[in-house]
Amino acid sequence: MTVTVRQVAADAGVSRQTVSNVLNAPARVDPVTRERVAEAIERLGYRPNRAARNLKLRRAGLVGYCVSPRSTPNLLMDAFLHAFCTAVADTGRHVLLFSAPPGEAGIGVYHDLVAERAVDAFVLSDTVADDPRHRALVGRAPVVSFGRADLGSWVDVDGAAACAELVTGLAALGHREIGFLGWRAPETAATADRRAGWQRACAELGLNGRVGLADDDSVAAGERAAGALLDAESAPTALVAISDQVALGALQAVTARGLRPGTDVAVTGFDDTPLAAAVVPGLTSVRQPLDLIAAELVRLLDDSEDQVLLRGKVISRASAPVPVEKGSS
Amino acid sequence: MTVTVRQVAADAGVSRQTVSNVLNAPARVDPVTRERVAEAIERLGYRPNRAARNLKLRRAGLVGYCVSPRSTPNLLMDAFLHAFCTAVADTGRHVLLFSAPPGEAGIGVYHDLVAERAVDAFVLSDTVADDPRHRALVGRAPVVSFGRADLGSWVDVDGAAACAELVTGLAALGHREIGFLGWRAPETAATADRRAGWQRACAELGLNGRVGLADDDSVAAGERAAGALLDAESAPTALVAISDQVALGALQAVTARGLRPGTDVAVTGFDDTPLAAAVVPGLTSVRQPLDLIAAELVRLLDDSEDQVLLRGKVISRASAPVPVEKGSS
Repeated sequence: MTVTVRQVAADAGVSRQTVSNVLNAPARVDPVTRERVAEAIERLGYRPNRAARNLKLRRAGLVGYCVSPRSTPNLLMDAFLHAFCTAVADTGRHVLLFSAPPGEAGIGVYHDLVAERAVDAFVLSDTVADDPRHRALVGRAPVVSFGRADLGSWVDVDGAAACAELVTGLAALGHREIGFLGWRAPETAATADRRAGWQRACAELGLNGRVGLADDDSVAAGERAAGALLDAESAPTALVAISDQVALGALQAVTARGLRPGTDVAVTGFDDTPLAAAVVPGLTSVRQPLDLIAAELVRLLDDSEDQVLLRGKVISRASAPVPVEKGSS
Repeated sequence: MTVTVRQVAADAGVSRQTVSNVLNAPARVDPVTRERVAEAIERLGYRPNRAARNLKLRRAGLVGYCVSPRSTPNLLMDAFLHAFCTAVADTGRHVLLFSAPPGEAGIGVYHDLVAERAVDAFVLSDTVADDPRHRALVGRAPVVSFGRADLGSWVDVDGAAACAELVTGLAALGHREIGFLGWRAPETAATADRRAGWQRACAELGLNGRVGLADDDSVAAGERAAGALLDAESAPTALVAISDQVALGALQAVTARGLRPGTDVAVTGFDDTPLAAAVVPGLTSVRQPLDLIAAELVRLLDDSEDQVLLRGKVISRASAPVPVEKGSS
């Protein structure tokens, strides 16, 4: 026996429209009424049923997001997902979380989600140049990327501007030899961008600097790459690192050579992960505006194609006590 | 004009059963056929529609999981969610990720998800004693908790056994005064359990030890709590900390007093977060078996009520080079 919206409305002493609002736009209904309707639904065993509604609306009401297996954990996943879920919920949808291998190997999972209409749209992260997911998805479902992409809308943080700001700050502290620590491969658009910002600022300020490349995004690889620069002739007195993990390795390379990090050799990281505040000396780093990133990603799902470049914020700590620009504190 | 399964099957040159398999059990279909069917679905504009299927099956095909806002980031969220999504996908469902405030304030979000039948079941983490979510959900939807719970099934790691193992290892290194660093509040079942394991092992081995309480789960609070113990009479030579963050604070308190961490004072953490391997000296910690935890959480969703206590693994590093028990390496 099927329970109807009419019965729920009668039981809760509200109109059918109110029941519909509780189901379709709960934020519009005051909490007390919402709770009374929810209780009536529960008591009568009504299944208003998101599935029925979505079938009618020809939508899943879900935005797909992939958590990939990865060698280096993303320490900001927790904070990003909270911001992302909140932004998606504001549009009356939820997040469908799934896992897929990176690259071509994972494309089948995306295809299945599209074929089943399990999601209405995707937000992609960890994008790479010529990402196979863009070829597979763009045109079949709305796709927005966190990180620069060749196809579709994207949101990214201006790594070049942030690294240039770090170089300018280090120069203000008196540094003339400012090295850059990158990753050997793959060089993504975001990492190339950070390096370009460092290079541009060094050129503008007439500074010297060499590049060291870490084999991967680990503390050990960062220590080796930094060590090679520190052991060379005309060693840098400051190191701008591509990530907090690589920067931590650089701090250790500095200490291992009897030098004082932050005093003899300045070191900066990127992303302002929880590592940056937890170590001694505290690591100067660049914070990404996660709430704003999440809001823009979700906005672009329903908007025309666009590219959004957001400003990172330099967080100055003892490893490189750079002056902080006005408006970014 | 509605496209039918029959048309899709004809277009792809397969049986209707194969189309159904692609939609309902894609793993059973070989990738080439799956791709051909997916292309036919796309070309014809067929909407097989998870919503229609779920409506028929009276289910959402989704398991709800909440990412809460929190003061201290969960550095293992990335790894846990990957394991969790994989385990849920193995049962033909996906994860619906949402955000809700902790405590009573978030109950409305859970109620809405139940009322809308947006999910079939919940996996809860960050459970507390007398958790309002259990009262709100148990009996209305299958609920399994990551962490001990008064109601419903749960999966947890045996913190008492792990802390007892740490104490035994520290005693084998010659330590006689082994302190414990906990949190002031709230004391959850899991944290009380870790402390009980430390206390029991100290009593069994005839060791002394005092408790220090950190105000929260931060490095700074850990440093203050450890400092108070180290400055007292009969200071401990080893500290078993409730978390990696608190342990990092303890390492800093040791260093600040001119003592060598790992040599003069041993320090252990808990959870084996990426922090533990990144610092110098490396932090001895307890790793939770995330893949196994995820698999058990999902198994219990469809099983009879049960409690599962899993073994943590001591990862020995230079901050407390304890011998590792056989079978746990």
